[in-house]
Amino acid sequence: MRVFGIDCGTEYTGYGIVETSGRNELRYVACGAVKLNKRFNSADRLKQVHEELEAQIAAHLPDVLAIEEVFYSVNPKSALKLGQVRGVAMLAGARAGLPIAEYSPLAIKSAVVGYGRADKQQVQYMVTKLLALSQPPEPFDASDALAIAICHLHTSATLLRQSAGAHV
Amino acid sequence: MRVFGIDCGTEYTGYGIVETSGRNELRYVACGAVKLNKRFNSADRLKQVHEELEAQIAAHLPDVLAIEEVFYSVNPKSALKLGQVRGVAMLAGARAGLPIAEYSPLAIKSAVVGYGRADKQQVQYMVTKLLALSQPPEPFDASDALAIAICHLHTSATLLRQSAGAHV
Repeated sequence: MRVFGIDCGTEYTGYGIVETSGRNELRYVACGAVKLNKRFNSADRLKQVHEELEAQIAAHLPDVLAIEEVFYSVNPKSALKLGQVRGVAMLAGARAGLPIAEYSPLAIKSAVVGYGRADKQQVQYMVTKLLALSQPPEPFDASDALAIAICHLHTSATLLRQSAGAHV
Repeated sequence: MRVFGIDCGTEYTGYGIVETSGRNELRYVACGAVKLNKRFNSADRLKQVHEELEAQIAAHLPDVLAIEEVFYSVNPKSALKLGQVRGVAMLAGARAGLPIAEYSPLAIKSAVVGYGRADKQQVQYMVTKLLALSQPPEPFDASDALAIAICHLHTSATLLRQSAGAHV
């Protein structure tokens, strides 16, 4: 299974693609971040994010898109701006016909670091180890997106094991 | 000039198209509302809004898109959901190469009713009068969207008069 993780932000939106082999081993595919062009107006920035994510989805043909769940404690102004980016990111997945899975920041950090309040450095460190990368993925938005993809693969693997167990 | 007004919402997203003739008379073109399908997941709902707005833009070929400005006093959860809809609505305009104008609720109500705290009934009544419609546009999301388009036409007409006056 190949997962396209997205970490939405109003400055950078990270993406990270991870797949599992037959034996559920994690394999790194690609990662990066869309840096929003501040010279663009907000509509053109949304177009930029949408088009870059669509191009990455078309290039890597994932089976599923995984995205961080709504972070409620931000203020309404930031939430609206983040929502706009999140909307066009989810649209990129929906237009490609992909199912979309959502995970809370707590679930993502727990799946990758084993600790729900881990910071970005710890997430980046563990992503580097889990994917056996020669150097840490940059920027943090890219390592966060890889963490979201890994979280989905861990969660699906657990669900598959549970469902297999149920048939024994 | 033909304006495509959008009133974003998480249940209905209204749109309304209004144009001016040579003598700056308002002419109604079309209006309607996209009712979000509650059976769809949020990504498919965003796809639904985006596609219906894109189809209406393609059908009516406006010169500009006008949208209500961010409404800051809503809570972060609602702001994020509204932002997602707003993001895919703005994207529909940006993908069609349209400039996007934003107006505050106060500016829109003042332009149409002459009173910034007017309610939806008053806006609907004045939109019906200003566009000489035989019956009020339904639902309120559609009349609100027409009001946004009228606000843009009034504002541009004022700006044009001011700029013409500056040359005298």
